Amino acid sequence: MGHVPHVLVEGPWKSDTLTLNESQSHHLGRVLRASPDDPVTYTDGMGVIGAGTLAGLGAISRSQERTVPKPRPLDLAVAPPAGKDRARFLVEKLGELGVTRLLWLRTVHGSNRVPATERARAWARAALEQSLGAWLMEVGDALVDWTELEAPIVACDPGSGSWAQPPRTVAIGPEGGWAPDEIPPEVPKWGLSPNVLRVETAAIVGASLVLAREPH
Amino acid sequence: MGHVPHVLVEGPWKSDTLTLNESQSHHLGRVLRASPDDPVTYTDGMGVIGAGTLAGLGAISRSQERTVPKPRPLDLAVAPPAGKDRARFLVEKLGELGVTRLLWLRTVHGSNRVPATERARAWARAALEQSLGAWLMEVGDALVDWTELEAPIVACDPGSGSWAQPPRTVAIGPEGGWAPDEIPPEVPKWGLSPNVLRVETAAIVGASLVLAREPH
Repeated sequence: MGHVPHVLVEGPWKSDTLTLNESQSHHLGRVLRASPDDPVTYTDGMGVIGAGTLAGLGAISRSQERTVPKPRPLDLAVAPPAGKDRARFLVEKLGELGVTRLLWLRTVHGSNRVPATERARAWARAALEQSLGAWLMEVGDALVDWTELEAPIVACDPGSGSWAQPPRTVAIGPEGGWAPDEIPPEVPKWGLSPNVLRVETAAIVGASLVLAREPH
Repeated sequence: MGHVPHVLVEGPWKSDTLTLNESQSHHLGRVLRASPDDPVTYTDGMGVIGAGTLAGLGAISRSQERTVPKPRPLDLAVAPPAGKDRARFLVEKLGELGVTRLLWLRTVHGSNRVPATERARAWARAALEQSLGAWLMEVGDALVDWTELEAPIVACDPGSGSWAQPPRTVAIGPEGGWAPDEIPPEVPKWGLSPNVLRVETAAIVGASLVLAREPH
């Protein structure tokens, strides 16, 4: 298939060679069976992508770098889903889709248990590599409240309602739904689907629909 | 929270009481801590929904039945993803979204390994119960070829292209991409996202975008 691996090496980059971590070297050598001098693409997760070659299995020789424009920002503010598998899919899929930030929203009926931050960020890094992206999704490390979200916000809520201007932040409530009056009055509601969706499903559908409105 | 459980009991229904299987009874009693006479909703997965009560923990007394109109049909024809977790996520999410049929598409670069059918159908049943649905998603039990798909078809392919009339079938290729000339010439290509998406992500995004065009 001639699949060229894509790796994230966070900056700042200070020399012509970038050092890979142990897990990346292992993945390239043992899983992908790459050899020295094989082509590899790389990114700093902040918009720069390069097309270099492996210098041994532990490093990359930099070459052909370009800057990918920053996409229009989109944050998902999500009530933490129950279960590690569902949190993992949420992080991975939003990362693949190119969401800017995943924030954990404090809600009345939610568990309000923030997934382990380092693990969640590792999932986001893997999703960036998988999707050949240039912009790493940020993952919050603490609960946030409505006042900390960037406007315009929409809150997904079964039923009707939509938006005309693409939101900066899409808020997703917990499995048990929003409490009465929990959504601030100035935040419009968005009836994402006629079906009852789980938290991670609603987040992925919401991100997909907002991003599809963007030119690409 | 007053959460009313929703259970799938496949028909035909021949008496005023519906018998639950062991796993449903266990879930109601041990997980949801339901009691006899508690309210429960139920469906045959073919459009009928009722609002009855538990007759003990192993049966439902039927009541207040109505028919939910059949949604406009949408099939996803997907190259089987690698790994049980990703197959499960695919089945569950398409089931929640109300997709009509999930078919396994034979592709040049795919593994062409069909996920275990009984397990996949159990995931679809759980997704229907979870999403309070009335129409059970069918899951194919063998590979299908392009000629077996219902038109109009679109094939998701990174890059440009879109559709004007909602497709009946959305085709999703394998991780390695389509082979040259694999997509039949009469099938339009759809550039779903500027990012490289995994198989299950592309399927969920594709289903979301098509279903969002439908009035609801």
